[in-house]
Amino acid sequence: MNRKLRDLGERRLVEWIVRRLEECEGASLPPGDDAADMLFRGRLLVSCDMLAASTDIPPGMDLRDAGFKAITSATSDIAAKGGKPIAYLVSLMLPPELGLESFEDLWEGFEEAAKLYGGRIVGGDLNSGREIVVDVICIGEAGRTASRLGARPGDILAVTGEFGSQAAGLHALLAGRLEDPEARRVVERFSRPMARVREALELAKTSAVTASIDSSDGLAESLYQLSELNDVGFLIDDPPISAEAERYAEKFGVSLFDLVFYGGEEYELVLTLRSKLVEKAVKAVEGVGGRLIPIGRVIEEKLIKVRWADGWRMLERRGYQHF
Amino acid sequence: MNRKLRDLGERRLVEWIVRRLEECEGASLPPGDDAADMLFRGRLLVSCDMLAASTDIPPGMDLRDAGFKAITSATSDIAAKGGKPIAYLVSLMLPPELGLESFEDLWEGFEEAAKLYGGRIVGGDLNSGREIVVDVICIGEAGRTASRLGARPGDILAVTGEFGSQAAGLHALLAGRLEDPEARRVVERFSRPMARVREALELAKTSAVTASIDSSDGLAESLYQLSELNDVGFLIDDPPISAEAERYAEKFGVSLFDLVFYGGEEYELVLTLRSKLVEKAVKAVEGVGGRLIPIGRVIEEKLIKVRWADGWRMLERRGYQHF
Repeated sequence: MNRKLRDLGERRLVEWIVRRLEECEGASLPPGDDAADMLFRGRLLVSCDMLAASTDIPPGMDLRDAGFKAITSATSDIAAKGGKPIAYLVSLMLPPELGLESFEDLWEGFEEAAKLYGGRIVGGDLNSGREIVVDVICIGEAGRTASRLGARPGDILAVTGEFGSQAAGLHALLAGRLEDPEARRVVERFSRPMARVREALELAKTSAVTASIDSSDGLAESLYQLSELNDVGFLIDDPPISAEAERYAEKFGVSLFDLVFYGGEEYELVLTLRSKLVEKAVKAVEGVGGRLIPIGRVIEEKLIKVRWADGWRMLERRGYQHF
Repeated sequence: MNRKLRDLGERRLVEWIVRRLEECEGASLPPGDDAADMLFRGRLLVSCDMLAASTDIPPGMDLRDAGFKAITSATSDIAAKGGKPIAYLVSLMLPPELGLESFEDLWEGFEEAAKLYGGRIVGGDLNSGREIVVDVICIGEAGRTASRLGARPGDILAVTGEFGSQAAGLHALLAGRLEDPEARRVVERFSRPMARVREALELAKTSAVTASIDSSDGLAESLYQLSELNDVGFLIDDPPISAEAERYAEKFGVSLFDLVFYGGEEYELVLTLRSKLVEKAVKAVEGVGGRLIPIGRVIEEKLIKVRWADGWRMLERRGYQHF
């Protein structure tokens, strides 16, 4: 009971992991060899996303959820470029005193998410260190990619879901609100964010998307990045507010505006669309059970304005900065 | 002067990095987009290698060398499978108090190595945390892969260089021996290990290789892994001793046997070869300025014996274990 990684030893831990690795179609190397391989033809996408316990796993967050989120985050970068995941590699740094059950939770989170998104975990690397650090590498494929570049004045701004519940969930976790039902709902959303792979694949077929990014650094930061790169601005007349976040904000007296715009780790797609093809795109996404919500439009003037309650507000740039 | 990452801020650090990223041939996404992309056709190889300051960067080691070694390590896994690198992604965790010049050193080490091996740094991820953690992802290609599986009794065991100077270099660094010329020579070797890409590509053409692994965890550990996976043993009658390591061991009274077999971070290839094709393989590797040194042979009995000084010794399994 309560065994630690140190008690198991590296060799047996590697064996445990290798037994659970899967083979990619067309692989000539067995799972656990020095590199993963596959036959591939087409447009290859590769993303990586690193998560460190001290920064990205708030106290009270389950390691299974952290594993799920790590896979989601790397997958979201692939979806934002119009692709779908094929394979994952996972690089791990783990403290020797980590409990074996905690490690199993983390790994099961990886597996659960990978399966959901249709990719296989085919390899990785294992190290010891002072805290848990997870780097997920996602290998995907796309027909045609969607870049961050390409938004033009007159395009419609749209997102694949409502915002605020992730930030509310983090707020609730940090405040230790685990009993309240409103709080529990947003904590659940925070723990299990979804990458929008199906939506991205349907959108790619419509030719509607002119620019695409995910909202992992918060909606405001994503909008500022699109604004800078494309030298345009945005008028948001219908901000995408999550009803759960609204109830949480009201109940606990936090700023709903901040929850919606300055959260993060919300893996929605933030897209600009050719105005003539918006209806087609909305229907295409609904066809796979998703949502595509027009929230405003692209303007020439390089500023971002939001209609909020009693009038228009300028959206400031203040997102999370690592340094 | 002496500015820190915290003073620069994340956005400007990302800009600095993105300016230095290169595009892959056939890329449709600009450097710095959410994922890297390329057109690809053939056998794709992917490896990753994580390095943590507390475990893998001994005091006194230059960050430029650490960067060089991180790229080398991921590249070596590709070479060991018979491939060559095309592109790298680099995931970084950095403490905010890291000096900007130190960061530049680290990055220049990445660039120097990537250029040497013929790959481009096309993307990555940036995070803050308690120590420096680098995860290098190497994307490569191979015609036919060389697996760890396939060694048969009667095959010849060979390596692409001599052993011991890496371990001696680490020993010298940890002992703070920076003045002594013998010590300085092995420290230099420790700081700049080379992945055997050219050698691997030539070997792939000869069809001589039956099993292949690199020696990143030490020669003994590589041999044990080949032994276990292939259910064979090895007789090593000509152990591959580096002359520098021999001089260092004599001068400072450390075990040469340990330096040769229980070091690590020596990125030589450890190969088994069809006996009839050994000569051809040796010549092929010499043709690109490399070396292929037969050191023994594969036997049926599952044990590893080494001829050393006055007789035969059994090689024990005791390599570095993270946990």
